[in-house]
Amino acid sequence: MATAIIFGATGGIGSALARQVAGEGRYRLVLSGRRAALSGLAQSLGAEALSTDLGVELEVHALFELTGPCDLLIYAAGAVDPTPLREMTSGSWQQLMDANLTGAFYALKHARFNPGAQVVLLGVYPEFVQAPRFGAYAASKAGLEALAEVARKELRRDKVGVTLVRLPAVETGLWQPLGKAPKGALDPKDAAAQILDGLKDAPPVLELGR
Amino acid sequence: MATAIIFGATGGIGSALARQVAGEGRYRLVLSGRRAALSGLAQSLGAEALSTDLGVELEVHALFELTGPCDLLIYAAGAVDPTPLREMTSGSWQQLMDANLTGAFYALKHARFNPGAQVVLLGVYPEFVQAPRFGAYAASKAGLEALAEVARKELRRDKVGVTLVRLPAVETGLWQPLGKAPKGALDPKDAAAQILDGLKDAPPVLELGR
Repeated sequence: MATAIIFGATGGIGSALARQVAGEGRYRLVLSGRRAALSGLAQSLGAEALSTDLGVELEVHALFELTGPCDLLIYAAGAVDPTPLREMTSGSWQQLMDANLTGAFYALKHARFNPGAQVVLLGVYPEFVQAPRFGAYAASKAGLEALAEVARKELRRDKVGVTLVRLPAVETGLWQPLGKAPKGALDPKDAAAQILDGLKDAPPVLELGR
Repeated sequence: MATAIIFGATGGIGSALARQVAGEGRYRLVLSGRRAALSGLAQSLGAEALSTDLGVELEVHALFELTGPCDLLIYAAGAVDPTPLREMTSGSWQQLMDANLTGAFYALKHARFNPGAQVVLLGVYPEFVQAPRFGAYAASKAGLEALAEVARKELRRDKVGVTLVRLPAVETGLWQPLGKAPKGALDPKDAAAQILDGLKDAPPVLELGR
């Protein structure tokens, strides 16, 4: 049976993806996410739970050692802190960079892949996020998109594909600090279905909601 | 007299910019850079030297407290490590992120500006750097470009302009790990002259070598 790993599986999009992947019944499913919600989610989906601090390389490394080679790796972890740059703490900046960018680097570095494996990274439409109060978020996601481009080129010889998914606003807890998601935000379940459907052709970039 | 601050002033582009700015004679000039080369450079240009670890927020903060409000802030610090993602150490990743991205965030956060001040950040042409072995560099520079976009919007009300300069390859020590700079690389002196000349209109983005 093929193995799928989802990082950020307790988030809005991550959990929708986890449910959808579990529903397909084609994968042994390994989930990483926030400690409090993870074991309940994994249990309900018949998945394995491996809580991981994405800012700590050793933990990400250990997850892949424990899991073995994978066929589908979805990095759905993400954090946002809508604060002007002049007021943002370095702790918040670092946490956001870790969740959105550095954790993805650690995953790409340490993942063990079967040939034909697919990596999925979640990007954004720059024009949606390059707005006041979203400096750290915009920077980390732009970094992630560039990382995806390079990873695709580097992993090609191992027959590993990298898909960057660009998402419009999705109705998740990420918007909580702002009160609520913007009008017209995608339902996470629809976003998950569209992502997994779009993955079938293993495109380098998958733009949704356009 | 107006005050100019240059970060990364001991680098190839930074030192060329420092010489050019000093030559104009219009600024009190404050330089931050690598400790070993900084005091000699500053002395030769009649500038003040404040060595700063760009990964340490307190040091960047202290520089601005000691310097007072500035009129021109050039962030020319930068690091590169041409290593595939699968082989890159987290220490090298972090150092590169600090020099190219987080240090710029600290500078934008703590700078004290006079009205009409101009910030200059050095970006890249994505297609030149989104290549194998440049994952960390490409990610950090893409992050910096997004940061520049947001900073411009946030600092507008303080009458501070932000110019993102996109540079082609410039003949600097940054290429040392690769042996030498690519053919047709700009001379740092020419790059510096073109940057300062292009700044006169305070454009949001200044693309050189195209």
